[in-house]
Amino acid sequence: MIVVMQGSATGEEIAAVEEQLEKSGFVPHRIQGAFRTVIGAVGDPQAAKVTGLERLPGVEKIVPITAPYKLVSRQFKAENSMIKAGPVSIGGEALAVMAGPCAVENWSSLITVARLVKKSGARVLRGGAFKPRTSPYSFQGLEHEGLKLLSRAGKETGLAVVTEVVDVRDVDLVARYADIIQIGARNMQNFTLLREVGRCGKPVLLKRGLAATVEEWLMAAEYILAEKNYQVILCERGIRTFECSTRNTLDISAVALVKQLSHLPVIVDPSHSGGNWRLVLPLSLAAIAAGANGLIVEVHLNPAEAFCDGKQSLTPDNFSHLMGRVAQLAPALGRTLAAPEQDTGGA
Amino acid sequence: MIVVMQGSATGEEIAAVEEQLEKSGFVPHRIQGAFRTVIGAVGDPQAAKVTGLERLPGVEKIVPITAPYKLVSRQFKAENSMIKAGPVSIGGEALAVMAGPCAVENWSSLITVARLVKKSGARVLRGGAFKPRTSPYSFQGLEHEGLKLLSRAGKETGLAVVTEVVDVRDVDLVARYADIIQIGARNMQNFTLLREVGRCGKPVLLKRGLAATVEEWLMAAEYILAEKNYQVILCERGIRTFECSTRNTLDISAVALVKQLSHLPVIVDPSHSGGNWRLVLPLSLAAIAAGANGLIVEVHLNPAEAFCDGKQSLTPDNFSHLMGRVAQLAPALGRTLAAPEQDTGGA
Amino acid sequence: MIVVMQGSATGEEIAAVEEQLEKSGFVPHRIQGAFRTVIGAVGDPQAAKVTGLERLPGVEKIVPITAPYKLVSRQFKAENSMIKAGPVSIGGEALAVMAGPCAVENWSSLITVARLVKKSGARVLRGGAFKPRTSPYSFQGLEHEGLKLLSRAGKETGLAVVTEVVDVRDVDLVARYADIIQIGARNMQNFTLLREVGRCGKPVLLKRGLAATVEEWLMAAEYILAEKNYQVILCERGIRTFECSTRNTLDISAVALVKQLSHLPVIVDPSHSGGNWRLVLPLSLAAIAAGANGLIVEVHLNPAEAFCDGKQSLTPDNFSHLMGRVAQLAPALGRTLAAPEQDTGGA
Amino acid sequence: MIVVMQGSATGEEIAAVEEQLEKSGFVPHRIQGAFRTVIGAVGDPQAAKVTGLERLPGVEKIVPITAPYKLVSRQFKAENSMIKAGPVSIGGEALAVMAGPCAVENWSSLITVARLVKKSGARVLRGGAFKPRTSPYSFQGLEHEGLKLLSRAGKETGLAVVTEVVDVRDVDLVARYADIIQIGARNMQNFTLLREVGRCGKPVLLKRGLAATVEEWLMAAEYILAEKNYQVILCERGIRTFECSTRNTLDISAVALVKQLSHLPVIVDPSHSGGNWRLVLPLSLAAIAAGANGLIVEVHLNPAEAFCDGKQSLTPDNFSHLMGRVAQLAPALGRTLAAPEQDTGGA
Repeated sequence: MIVVMQGSATGEEIAAVEEQLEKSGFVPHRIQGAFRTVIGAVGDPQAAKVTGLERLPGVEKIVPITAPYKLVSRQFKAENSMIKAGPVSIGGEALAVMAGPCAVENWSSLITVARLVKKSGARVLRGGAFKPRTSPYSFQGLEHEGLKLLSRAGKETGLAVVTEVVDVRDVDLVARYADIIQIGARNMQNFTLLREVGRCGKPVLLKRGLAATVEEWLMAAEYILAEKNYQVILCERGIRTFECSTRNTLDISAVALVKQLSHLPVIVDPSHSGGNWRLVLPLSLAAIAAGANGLIVEVHLNPAEAFCDGKQSLTPDNFSHLMGRVAQLAPALGRTLAAPEQDTGGA
Repeated sequence: MIVVMQGSATGEEIAAVEEQLEKSGFVPHRIQGAFRTVIGAVGDPQAAKVTGLERLPGVEKIVPITAPYKLVSRQFKAENSMIKAGPVSIGGEALAVMAGPCAVENWSSLITVARLVKKSGARVLRGGAFKPRTSPYSFQGLEHEGLKLLSRAGKETGLAVVTEVVDVRDVDLVARYADIIQIGARNMQNFTLLREVGRCGKPVLLKRGLAATVEEWLMAAEYILAEKNYQVILCERGIRTFECSTRNTLDISAVALVKQLSHLPVIVDPSHSGGNWRLVLPLSLAAIAAGANGLIVEVHLNPAEAFCDGKQSLTPDNFSHLMGRVAQLAPALGRTLAAPEQDTGGA
Repeated sequence: MIVVMQGSATGEEIAAVEEQLEKSGFVPHRIQGAFRTVIGAVGDPQAAKVTGLERLPGVEKIVPITAPYKLVSRQFKAENSMIKAGPVSIGGEALAVMAGPCAVENWSSLITVARLVKKSGARVLRGGAFKPRTSPYSFQGLEHEGLKLLSRAGKETGLAVVTEVVDVRDVDLVARYADIIQIGARNMQNFTLLREVGRCGKPVLLKRGLAATVEEWLMAAEYILAEKNYQVILCERGIRTFECSTRNTLDISAVALVKQLSHLPVIVDPSHSGGNWRLVLPLSLAAIAAGANGLIVEVHLNPAEAFCDGKQSLTPDNFSHLMGRVAQLAPALGRTLAAPEQDTGGA
Repeated sequence: MIVVMQGSATGEEIAAVEEQLEKSGFVPHRIQGAFRTVIGAVGDPQAAKVTGLERLPGVEKIVPITAPYKLVSRQFKAENSMIKAGPVSIGGEALAVMAGPCAVENWSSLITVARLVKKSGARVLRGGAFKPRTSPYSFQGLEHEGLKLLSRAGKETGLAVVTEVVDVRDVDLVARYADIIQIGARNMQNFTLLREVGRCGKPVLLKRGLAATVEEWLMAAEYILAEKNYQVILCERGIRTFECSTRNTLDISAVALVKQLSHLPVIVDPSHSGGNWRLVLPLSLAAIAAGANGLIVEVHLNPAEAFCDGKQSLTPDNFSHLMGRVAQLAPALGRTLAAPEQDTGGA
């Protein structure tokens, strides 16, 4: 931590800051500059509470030096983490593709989509049972019934299952049915929910918040790891910016950056990022090229009749085409994609 | 709702959209433009599920016409809502000022601050018992113990008490101790929490999310009103933008706009907006001038030693000065401020 | 400047950075931290070219300490600058209000509006002769003819005149007719234009760019002062954010912050900020309360027929009402507003 | 255009809007909805001036239907445009890579870099002679001398040359030396400059502004095409968002979207987007995968001593590695990359 003093700071003010730093367990190092004094504070920032330093007379600002996350960082663990979820491993050379409808609507359409996306090479079935909706009047999901359908579809096809939890009281329930528990963008800083999924023992898919910085996103993951659950998959799904011609702005640089800062796998959601099915293909290819470990894609039998997100959903045919293009691309990047499944029918 | 067709849309495609609209309970009105066809869809958008329309062949985009909120709107209720919280009424001519520390730290500092802010004219005591913190390693609040201290300080001073709830399982607990329950910015779209506070019967202070549009903010309030709790106070606390010289960007226009769109009271948090105690005074005056119904301000006995947010906290002296300036300003805007209390020592 | 080394940096890498700093005229001060080394670099950053330091092996990041602007800062000049423009002084206790149509359209409407806004207390007439328009097919202004009309209206009413220049080749021409030359938001970093107006000897109204940080805005002003033109008025007119319910987001905190950082006067444009005439009144009052030195407001005889910006323009009646409210507010803030003019008819 | 009336609009107000539309050359179509009336206005929006409609009594908002750009749209020209610049064609299957230093510093380093990037497969040499700098005290470029060096380096190597113009008075000068004239991000809405390069007959590289929407970017291109210069290459270089861990946020979706909306080629600047040389490789691969027609990359012999942008510059070795990876990727996407040049040495 560096304390930058005002140009007008007096010797006494500087001494008072140094004293406060020492009281907080830091060793201060004073540097007398041409225009002002700065004080380097050596010590462990985690161990010390010094939030009010900026209020001491003569202090201009505090510059933190060390990143606030630990367990998620590459300094802590240099090699890539591999997350096992049912039959799938995420984080290695092999790309992991998750696909399925925005919301679970009924058994017949769910199992049909599940079989089709598996055929095209997906390894994880996605589908919402609890839906966080902007309007209280919108369809909110089939809830427990939706979980049962998902789990059954996973068993019948051999796909792992990922679904969102939105209420701390449902974590155990969701964990019984899902192979991967999703924390949605709106709940990325719902810290009680993060702690609860940190204790549930299941892999967690942590979506980035709409306005979360990369550092805040990693800190949210740190909450889960701090509960000793190291099975976290990060998911970039677009951030909110001034640009409204797409639903969100896919922050492709964040994918590359997080791969450098953290050992955790990162996947991309091209459906929510662009908000438009016509953008799903190019954004998926870009995500893989930038280093993502996989994709999570909305696929619906008949997007024009979807309960939600129809605009951004692929048809099974669109998805099959996408997977063909991904399969073509993967080797040129040193990645592999699971061969489309033979019709073995799952479990 | 208006459906805009592509310039190249065929007659069949247009007919198919009209048919789908009719199936969904709308009456379509076709307008043949110079370059393209648009279809006006007359009907109640709440009653119909037509999310996938954009995926029909030939459709370019959908333009919604009616705002998605109802109960919170001025169309629904023209006159200003007055929210009663303990001894305070919020929403009328009188300004409501809430003040107190970021976090409850101990009895002695809490009761001292409470007495001082009351003396300066505050009517509500703020203080965090459950703190949502970016880092799992930061101080997370005194929890139940903090609630007790707050409630006791409220009783001893005659101030109403506002404090945040972050976990659905704590709503009843918090409701027992608080006069106003706060939903923080990070939980603005924690819909299960919104529903729960909607059912608890206590007034709710709903902070705007860092990246929430005005419409999403009003929709979050709608969740609470939809549970028949009409006692919602909106709180603008700054949004996240590219500008980093302030902690957040106080969206002063949103204050003015929401007063036009909704009957609910709106207050402003100048502490989190600017993130700097030197900005609290000008932002408070601006908020009142723009039409806010009150303020919520962080005040700490010794900001340099605060457990959190010391940089943006006022000392009791700063706060007293602020209240003097607000009192000067209020009459010029047709507002009133409760006269600073005589030292009656509370209830 | 502080150079933060990576945790893994070797002694040789640290020495190499120190050597490079010395070559560039800095004195390095090494601080050995718990996890990493940081190097304080003492010297004048203006005098040295060290942009590539981040590329040296072992370097993690560079943290600048000193603000990059000089002439515009309060360190350089502590007392408020007063800018004289024709009969008006801007920057003191008296509020300066500029008003007039978005674009100069014809003599008759211009002189009528000019007389009306003067009557209501405006001291400067605004009006666009050269209009920067998003579309090449939109009305681009009356150009030279517009300048003549403006200047004549200024002379007939005794109002100072402010108008925008968009082309370096027109600076002399505009300077002949205008009392204040406006640099629009889109040209805030058109550095050749900034230098040219810096040389023209006339006061400059410098609008903040849509995505300009406060620091970049002040640096743009620095360009003008560096040419020895110290007569700069800053104008906050809203920044671009995710929020689309208003045209831009008025950054009211920036007004307060810039008053602390700089000695230059700051005014606010409530018309472009909100993009809606219904917001002009509350935003104007908020601006004054936050410490702005004045306003620039769009006024049109018949907004529904304006060539541009009709949606955000006030009628003369609206403006008269606004000025009444500002006059009520000013004394409560220790400001004054010129008394509405008697009908003396100008120069 | 759709005019949405307020729920409370009277029959007379609706009739007045229809009358005004007719006066402006539109045919109004009234649709009586459940809650409000909307009026479809059929006609050519380019031909009509109706900006003030929002100010008519009873009007809630105006919804434009037709995109405001024409010449740049795929509706106007369905097939991809190919831009010829010296020996290079941009816009087809072959990827075009532009590389070179941020600023031209001296002959020896320029020609060395030029030869090295050509060897690695670049076809265009980039280099700044006129540098738009945030600070008036920073290095502003070698100006005319820089142009001469660039042009000579282009001739000696057979590379086309791209360089930025920042002043309308220099357009002719720059056009004499450059094969492609660059409009920088800060000048994207410098409309006089756009018109001037529209008249100069040379291909133009139009960088997207930091806060420009896709529509505004295309409208800026429209300014150039409207002057009958159809040789425009669009360049995405990152937008400004709340995320500060990268210099800008590469809007990869905009690349995909613009390829759908416009026939113009689009390239990506991974250097400015990420602001960090470690991100240049993944962002370049992502750009190509998303459909970009090429790249513009900063390369410097010794980034640690670059006059500017050293942090984001590649060394020639980094660049050679990048080009190897791009060459591997291209065929998997149906693209080609010019084979690395044999050492023919140019002119």
